[in-house]
Amino acid sequence: MSRVAVIGTGVSKFGERDDVSLRELAAEATEGALKGSGLEVSDLEASVFGVANQYLAQQVQPGAIINSYLGLTGKPSFTTTDACASGSAAIRAGWMSIRSGVHDVVLVVGAEKMNGLKTLQALEAMGRAGDPEWELNPTGITDTGLYAIFANAHMKRFGTTEEQLAKIAVKNYKYGSMNPISHLKKKVEIEDVLNSSVVSAPLKLHDCSLVSDGAASVVLASEEAASKLEDDLVYIDGIGCSTDTAAIFDRESLTELKATRLAAERAYKMAKVEPKDIDIADVHDCFTIAELLAYEDLGFCEKGEGGNFIEERKPYKDGETPINIDGGLKAKGHPLGATGVAMAAEITEQLKGNAGKRQVNGAEIGLTHNVARDGTHAFVHVFRRG
Amino acid sequence: MSRVAVIGTGVSKFGERDDVSLRELAAEATEGALKGSGLEVSDLEASVFGVANQYLAQQVQPGAIINSYLGLTGKPSFTTTDACASGSAAIRAGWMSIRSGVHDVVLVVGAEKMNGLKTLQALEAMGRAGDPEWELNPTGITDTGLYAIFANAHMKRFGTTEEQLAKIAVKNYKYGSMNPISHLKKKVEIEDVLNSSVVSAPLKLHDCSLVSDGAASVVLASEEAASKLEDDLVYIDGIGCSTDTAAIFDRESLTELKATRLAAERAYKMAKVEPKDIDIADVHDCFTIAELLAYEDLGFCEKGEGGNFIEERKPYKDGETPINIDGGLKAKGHPLGATGVAMAAEITEQLKGNAGKRQVNGAEIGLTHNVARDGTHAFVHVFRRG
Repeated sequence: MSRVAVIGTGVSKFGERDDVSLRELAAEATEGALKGSGLEVSDLEASVFGVANQYLAQQVQPGAIINSYLGLTGKPSFTTTDACASGSAAIRAGWMSIRSGVHDVVLVVGAEKMNGLKTLQALEAMGRAGDPEWELNPTGITDTGLYAIFANAHMKRFGTTEEQLAKIAVKNYKYGSMNPISHLKKKVEIEDVLNSSVVSAPLKLHDCSLVSDGAASVVLASEEAASKLEDDLVYIDGIGCSTDTAAIFDRESLTELKATRLAAERAYKMAKVEPKDIDIADVHDCFTIAELLAYEDLGFCEKGEGGNFIEERKPYKDGETPINIDGGLKAKGHPLGATGVAMAAEITEQLKGNAGKRQVNGAEIGLTHNVARDGTHAFVHVFRRG
Repeated sequence: MSRVAVIGTGVSKFGERDDVSLRELAAEATEGALKGSGLEVSDLEASVFGVANQYLAQQVQPGAIINSYLGLTGKPSFTTTDACASGSAAIRAGWMSIRSGVHDVVLVVGAEKMNGLKTLQALEAMGRAGDPEWELNPTGITDTGLYAIFANAHMKRFGTTEEQLAKIAVKNYKYGSMNPISHLKKKVEIEDVLNSSVVSAPLKLHDCSLVSDGAASVVLASEEAASKLEDDLVYIDGIGCSTDTAAIFDRESLTELKATRLAAERAYKMAKVEPKDIDIADVHDCFTIAELLAYEDLGFCEKGEGGNFIEERKPYKDGETPINIDGGLKAKGHPLGATGVAMAAEITEQLKGNAGKRQVNGAEIGLTHNVARDGTHAFVHVFRRG
């Protein structure tokens, strides 16, 4: 079966985008992806859209509206939605649509406009990604509360410190300030993080990702179609996905995201690589503790060693495994449906050597890791140059 | 590449299901599908869920909740959402996941609980499937209003009558009363339809489908995996999809659903069949005019001939092309996300000869036709026995 290549990428400016609607954000990203691929809209055979939250979108069929606005009327399309991992679900579906032989060139777009609702409404809308009947409604718990539970458990079991979590934020702000599309461009020091207001102890303001508007697009193509357009290709050679219980009271462990571990195993196996082969990764840092869990669950270090991993600067640009060199969800931003697609765009451009100041030298194999909510889903994709 | 078989089907009772939650509805349907396939939950490799409306569900990640409740924790899964066609989008995605070689046995579940909100809230929630910014908000138009426009246009252009539309309702009520899972089991006469209250002229109460709770499940399998389980197999040999503009002011015609026409062309081509080869079809009769348009757009009769097609009883059980012999959305019910999967279940069981009183003799090739909203998407799938 055909390998699947990423032949064009585009990411909108992330941030508070009151200047545009959801469909316009999607068009902004898609313009870049088309330009990168050298294709016209008419060359696209089909589309897959990833949008997470119909409450935030204030519409229940955003894919149809975006598809129409992009000029894709008449082409096959469908929409995926799995909370914060909706974009990676769309990439998985688009990849399968090519691998199945149905299509050769498919546009995948992730988009979310999160600033259309007032903050409390937005929080409730996001809270509904959990288990409203068995968790949200009876306990009122939010995403931050869930990850605070994970952080407390990790600190208690492994001695992880608030300073170590803060160092993850410092790293991601640093790289975010080098990324033109970032929502926040500011440098923070460890003290800034530690002294920021507590959201849900031990997580503080600077441990949390952002409420961003944004969109990202990639054009996927079969090896045959891609080879006609470019010589220097990046392929998605491994796609892994797993799920976990919707409510955390059913989980076996509070110090790992099991879905990440299983998704990674599947992706590594399909791509025939091991964690040590990964030259660069974008991981799901919705909170600093989430990035730390990812270090361990993706196999970049042993369980419990995440604190040391950041202490030793291993996820820095010149470290052992550069991670979130685009600023991550923390600084680049986290427009839910866009996030997984933006990760794919970043890793593709890194492997092509197009990442400018953020370029990781000699990167040949990359990885994206995108999580829904508190690990109800995880998608891990392995990218390879050539 | 492998053909994709349907090896088990299950459909919950449709109706006002205040007795169960969304996840329980999904479990009810899945129990039937597993029983039919002879498999255990542990034999399922992955799942795809189709749920249309997060407002109706009052949650934004229903797939995660259902997956967990069904005991599929740890397996790959994602969710599709394309309004009333979400179930067929899930089948398309599940089909591709097998055809791509990633999985061999995949559970596809469509589910919707529509009676959790008050009627006006539900109407607004469904209205958001259109183009809220450019259509719903400025004009306030509902689904019924859109299909009333189509009906008026068809009547004016082709002389179609309200009596002809009423005959479609009479047929579907008749067959719905023979289906154990139907939401409504009553027989109506043409006068009952014509004298029912006007909802949006010329569409009256009995021209409209129902606000139903329900779920449907199918187990899909690769030819190799399926052949180990059964001798008498039904395959999905053609999958066609198309899209149209999100708002109708951009449409070329008000007397066809272009997405249906294009999706059907693609499905027929892939399955190497023609409309005359179809022995039985389930089509998207959200309103009687929608079924009439489907007769024409699927090629069962010429454009403008839909009125005569029903007059001549061609879509009856013993007619030329039996259509909606399960009662259709009109009488069986229309729990949005469940609809496309329930169609697949019905056509599979018809082709296997398991449809009891509703059995169409000698049916070898069947078709499902599922539409989002007013034709923003259409999915046409062709099923073949053996």
